Amino acid sequence: MAPKYKLTYFPIAGLAEQIRFLFSYGGIEFEDNRIDPASWPTLKSTTPVGQLPILEVDGKVLFQSIAINRYLGHILGLAGKTPLENCEIDAVADTITDLRFKFTVWHQQEEGPKKEELKEKLSNEVLPLYLGKFEQWATANGGYLALGRLTWVDIVAASIFEVFDKMFASKFQTQSLLNEYPTLQKLQSTVFNIPNIKAWIDKRPADKLQ
Amino acid sequence: MAPKYKLTYFPIAGLAEQIRFLFSYGGIEFEDNRIDPASWPTLKSTTPVGQLPILEVDGKVLFQSIAINRYLGHILGLAGKTPLENCEIDAVADTITDLRFKFTVWHQQEEGPKKEELKEKLSNEVLPLYLGKFEQWATANGGYLALGRLTWVDIVAASIFEVFDKMFASKFQTQSLLNEYPTLQKLQSTVFNIPNIKAWIDKRPADKLQ
Repeated sequence: MAPKYKLTYFPIAGLAEQIRFLFSYGGIEFEDNRIDPASWPTLKSTTPVGQLPILEVDGKVLFQSIAINRYLGHILGLAGKTPLENCEIDAVADTITDLRFKFTVWHQQEEGPKKEELKEKLSNEVLPLYLGKFEQWATANGGYLALGRLTWVDIVAASIFEVFDKMFASKFQTQSLLNEYPTLQKLQSTVFNIPNIKAWIDKRPADKLQ
Repeated sequence: MAPKYKLTYFPIAGLAEQIRFLFSYGGIEFEDNRIDPASWPTLKSTTPVGQLPILEVDGKVLFQSIAINRYLGHILGLAGKTPLENCEIDAVADTITDLRFKFTVWHQQEEGPKKEELKEKLSNEVLPLYLGKFEQWATANGGYLALGRLTWVDIVAASIFEVFDKMFASKFQTQSLLNEYPTLQKLQSTVFNIPNIKAWIDKRPADKLQ
């Protein structure tokens, strides 16, 4: 019997949307449990490290979004065939997380000159470096980020780049942080147009917190 | 024929020591290439994302330390047997990385009241939360962090906790951040006393940068 999946997160895309994309890609049913933010202080202490998302698989609680994405990637045939191939995928995933971390440090900084300085650095150094590398890898891999074929990290990247754009693009006076990266734009479009993912995007609930 | 491994990092423990531990555990020969920090500005642009460590496997360049640790874990029989088991290991590894990020934010902050505030938060909230969780998981898993047996994340944790202690413990007026966490101390001791790892610890070069 297929496992029963329950995904718990806030009523936004954030770090759960990649998981929702992967479930949709695989045509796997899951309970999309979007909590009322008012209930979070109570729920928080019941989670493994005080964070969401969590994914319950027949009641067993999985946590850490990238670990969950990798788990689904393996189940869905979107992982590598060897440890070496998986290392290539994983390195891209961890580099996306590094970029996310840099956004977070800036985002959480109090308004002031330090925050402006972090933003300048993001704009002039960090984003060109990271997005430039992703663009380079996608160009070298036939439009995908690793292994020359679709893997779970492409689906993660397509969704995370959308989240980055929703949260941050306007702060950088652009519609999309990917504007100067045509291969990444094409990768995102490729993922968004996978029929099962397109169907999810067409029906997904609107974010309530943004 | 066994692959040829070349690990490149600064002449310190840092984020390479976990890889050195795993090679040692497996009795796998590797070139331990410790660069002169003066050569880093030149070398930096030749690395995948301007970071070390990198691991060359028959010339193929792997990067991102946790991805490399996971790769070696799979090769050495220290991974899970199913995607679900691996997700449990990976979630612990990513939680260790989260803690490392929090140390980094504090460590990179300029001296001043904000840095003091971050240190207070680390001391009173972050460390008790994370180390408390690790202690709890180790207690629930027969002394290991996941799956009730030794996996690669135990070796990573034992080494990273040593690095945290070298870098940060004195700032928190303690000899070891694990002082109040007996199960984690025991886990670290268990890993350090695995004969192949003990042999590495006994012969490893002294850090040059600390």
